[in-house]
Amino acid sequence: MKRLLTFTLMAATAAVAVRAQSPSRIVTDTIPSEILGVAKAFSVYLPAGYDDSDRDYPVLYLLHGATDDHQSWLVKGNMRKIADVTYLSGMAVPAVIVMPDAAGEEPGNRGYRMGYFDKPGWEYERHFFEEFIPAVESRYRIRSGKNYRAVAGLSMGGGGSMVYALHRPDLFGSCCPLSGLLAAPRIPDRLIDDEAFHESIVRDDPQAIIREAGPAELDSYRTVRWYIDCGDDDFLYECNVQTYLLMREKEIPLQYRMRDGGHSWEYWQSALPTVLTFISVPFAE
Amino acid sequence: MKRLLTFTLMAATAAVAVRAQSPSRIVTDTIPSEILGVAKAFSVYLPAGYDDSDRDYPVLYLLHGATDDHQSWLVKGNMRKIADVTYLSGMAVPAVIVMPDAAGEEPGNRGYRMGYFDKPGWEYERHFFEEFIPAVESRYRIRSGKNYRAVAGLSMGGGGSMVYALHRPDLFGSCCPLSGLLAAPRIPDRLIDDEAFHESIVRDDPQAIIREAGPAELDSYRTVRWYIDCGDDDFLYECNVQTYLLMREKEIPLQYRMRDGGHSWEYWQSALPTVLTFISVPFAE
Amino acid sequence: MKRLLTFTLMAATAAVAVRAQSPSRIVTDTIPSEILGVAKAFSVYLPAGYDDSDRDYPVLYLLHGATDDHQSWLVKGNMRKIADVTYLSGMAVPAVIVMPDAAGEEPGNRGYRMGYFDKPGWEYERHFFEEFIPAVESRYRIRSGKNYRAVAGLSMGGGGSMVYALHRPDLFGSCCPLSGLLAAPRIPDRLIDDEAFHESIVRDDPQAIIREAGPAELDSYRTVRWYIDCGDDDFLYECNVQTYLLMREKEIPLQYRMRDGGHSWEYWQSALPTVLTFISVPFAE
Amino acid sequence: MKRLLTFTLMAATAAVAVRAQSPSRIVTDTIPSEILGVAKAFSVYLPAGYDDSDRDYPVLYLLHGATDDHQSWLVKGNMRKIADVTYLSGMAVPAVIVMPDAAGEEPGNRGYRMGYFDKPGWEYERHFFEEFIPAVESRYRIRSGKNYRAVAGLSMGGGGSMVYALHRPDLFGSCCPLSGLLAAPRIPDRLIDDEAFHESIVRDDPQAIIREAGPAELDSYRTVRWYIDCGDDDFLYECNVQTYLLMREKEIPLQYRMRDGGHSWEYWQSALPTVLTFISVPFAE
Repeated sequence: MKRLLTFTLMAATAAVAVRAQSPSRIVTDTIPSEILGVAKAFSVYLPAGYDDSDRDYPVLYLLHGATDDHQSWLVKGNMRKIADVTYLSGMAVPAVIVMPDAAGEEPGNRGYRMGYFDKPGWEYERHFFEEFIPAVESRYRIRSGKNYRAVAGLSMGGGGSMVYALHRPDLFGSCCPLSGLLAAPRIPDRLIDDEAFHESIVRDDPQAIIREAGPAELDSYRTVRWYIDCGDDDFLYECNVQTYLLMREKEIPLQYRMRDGGHSWEYWQSALPTVLTFISVPFAE
Repeated sequence: MKRLLTFTLMAATAAVAVRAQSPSRIVTDTIPSEILGVAKAFSVYLPAGYDDSDRDYPVLYLLHGATDDHQSWLVKGNMRKIADVTYLSGMAVPAVIVMPDAAGEEPGNRGYRMGYFDKPGWEYERHFFEEFIPAVESRYRIRSGKNYRAVAGLSMGGGGSMVYALHRPDLFGSCCPLSGLLAAPRIPDRLIDDEAFHESIVRDDPQAIIREAGPAELDSYRTVRWYIDCGDDDFLYECNVQTYLLMREKEIPLQYRMRDGGHSWEYWQSALPTVLTFISVPFAE
Repeated sequence: MKRLLTFTLMAATAAVAVRAQSPSRIVTDTIPSEILGVAKAFSVYLPAGYDDSDRDYPVLYLLHGATDDHQSWLVKGNMRKIADVTYLSGMAVPAVIVMPDAAGEEPGNRGYRMGYFDKPGWEYERHFFEEFIPAVESRYRIRSGKNYRAVAGLSMGGGGSMVYALHRPDLFGSCCPLSGLLAAPRIPDRLIDDEAFHESIVRDDPQAIIREAGPAELDSYRTVRWYIDCGDDDFLYECNVQTYLLMREKEIPLQYRMRDGGHSWEYWQSALPTVLTFISVPFAE
Repeated sequence: MKRLLTFTLMAATAAVAVRAQSPSRIVTDTIPSEILGVAKAFSVYLPAGYDDSDRDYPVLYLLHGATDDHQSWLVKGNMRKIADVTYLSGMAVPAVIVMPDAAGEEPGNRGYRMGYFDKPGWEYERHFFEEFIPAVESRYRIRSGKNYRAVAGLSMGGGGSMVYALHRPDLFGSCCPLSGLLAAPRIPDRLIDDEAFHESIVRDDPQAIIREAGPAELDSYRTVRWYIDCGDDDFLYECNVQTYLLMREKEIPLQYRMRDGGHSWEYWQSALPTVLTFISVPFAE
């Protein structure tokens, strides 16, 4: 019998032979929400070695964009492979990576229940802080403390991550919005007419939050490590660049990157290793 | 009616508005082969702007790996998006990119008819030079001359690209094997027992070709620009590194990269922009 | 006698042995200017191989910053080594690189005669276009045509390069301002009180030029390939980011990069290889 | 009075305003050695913030090459600026970086007393472990434990770092040889005729150490995180690549990079940020 296994399989076999630790794995989990009145699914990446000891890990909350859900970073974003390689190469400290679900319940993952903010009858942000984080951090072995908790996200989830860190700078050591929707967009009516989504973004505008902040709030924002990344071809370039200008004006230290590219999974995939490195630094405190 | 188009669509629309050239497109084409006795399919990437003028383009022959085919660089390798972005960002000279089919005709794209070399009754290499290149370069607007023709490939196709450029250094300005099968591998029997494939690789071993070359052949190899890239975790590391050692010993100038990674599409995708830049340089001659 | 030559020397020797072309060289040249009433020095980088044939080369005008001169890219910027490596690695098409002198004649390279713009009695820009470019391009083997001419510069020279390309888009295929002074800065009086310099910058403000341009001028700007790069810690961040916003608003295609760093030679050194690649692309036309 | 301060100064001022921590500083220190019978100088980089608290820091021993000394990484390698930027950008955990002096005492920093290994009458390695490390770690606030100690070096110091980590894998969490002299070189007599240096390298050949190691030693080598980097144009390419082949054969996990370049400060400067990130990962344990 003639057999030819693929080279990829051979490579994988060889790699496992050398390093005797449990491989990374993905868990699809669910949390019943009293606040929302429904059960919400979420995905969890447990890094290689998680199953080999009892030690606690830092955590990254990694938020998806509009019309996506808790599986998009895995399926479209290839996040498992990217995290595996980044950790195996020794360029970041392994973390548990949690991907929540802020999709709507209409076809195409949209509608009133889409988004990271509170709306009448759908208080997603309250759910996130009061139900979701506590549940995740009790079910998985998460090291407690602001230094060991980070939040990042893309597009709508970039805006979500930024607002979450502005609302609760005591909770997050690092915040990394990628191509974030960092302001209520001036988008032609013919493209978006979901008013509830639009209103929630107007209400939770990160630039407005920063502009109206007093000295104590500004000081609290300075305790978060900010890493903002938005490509020079992105259609959300304006709100990102204006957030950069505002944060420099307010003397909130931040990292900002404008690389080549647009609003695409290629851009976010190539951003992820740097995000994993960046959030690692306070893990050593 | 409530509508929410995806952000990606919006971004695409905006980008097209600015640049008034025809977008890139993919053609799936076919060539009847007298040598092989069958028709062979191939894929062609025509860069943005190709349809807007009558000018000729440089050409890159981009070879797939074992058990893949002429669609793999497109489907698994995301090559269209990568080439689009590289060209749009102004970091490489647009080329026509031709992806041939060296798959076998057994299930899983394997069997006797797999590979880039000649076997009794299946002279693929002869087909490539005598039928395929001439057909491609008459059907598409290809600039003639060694400087404007490059060959690259991954894994089995990395070996193919290397041997093609060693056999015909007069035809190729640049050659870029990625994670190439650059020697007959010492692979345990249980993994590969396709003898015909194995024999064709033993017969067309790039290191043997170089080792046995006389001064005139060595000089001809020095007229090709070589760029070899194989990750530090790749299971084919040994034959790649030995080819590097041999070429340095023989004073054949080359570029060699060992980046982080294994035998994976992530590695080849991240290699492609550099390959497109590297092959561009002689296009200006 | 015990001798130990440095490893660096050995490496250099080995490299030269392999590639039998003349090495790059630096020429310090002088042009007598009737317009300025003085002789101006300039530096020229001739790439490896320049002395081996009679063929013409593309040209890059590479401008220095305030208080520097025609030697700064060489001495502080390490440009010769960087260009050598970029060209040897095959990632850019070799060009002649010309470094003019826009230093003032007071101590510290400042004073009234500093800068790239026209002032009463010191018409540097007129000198640049009417005397300098023609002299350079007749003394050295420069390929004629917009596609083969690029201009780049750092800080004050970034502003100079941008304004030159806006004033003469027919002359330059590419323009690459690095950390450019792209607007009259709002700088506290205690830091800059050189009024003539300030006034020349106010008069030649790239944003004003773009803002006031009519449709024909805007179309001409679209024939230049723009690459703007300014670090997220740069003190000139604001005028760079605003230029980016303005060019996107005016639908002038551009590349923009915001990498990590400030107003430093490290930043410009790491930008140079990409600039050399970027300007190469139209050389193949 | 007309004044024009350089832009660089302005940038520096602005940056300091935002971040209220003590800047990094360089200490030139001295240790009297009983073993060597002389006093040896060394340089220490204390990261920004070191003077603001009492907390302990991880430590990196960063070794210089042949004919250099404890000031070379500072003067030729620009290490202070590179470390400052890497730490400020949040891509590595700040460490104390110690640069010892293994120069000889003949003109040109060579002669019998040059090198990291023991010779009759000049037991530098014994001095390093018995006198130098203890002195450094008591004078500066160094966190104790293998995880918080790393060693790296270039060329001769790359060899030194590798042998030190092989001799004392219990002491070092990470080891990063850059363009390392990882074997006794086959170098023509006319280039090196310092026999003592040559003999010490033959005696402390990292490949011999690995080849002759028993299972327990091999296991201990696997507790060190290895990062080896040597450019494709380096004249020391062969011993580096062979070390890579040997370590893969012996199943000692390692990172290996072959980037574009030779035996040059440009190469080591561009390697340093990655080294600082790589050694940071175990600091979080």
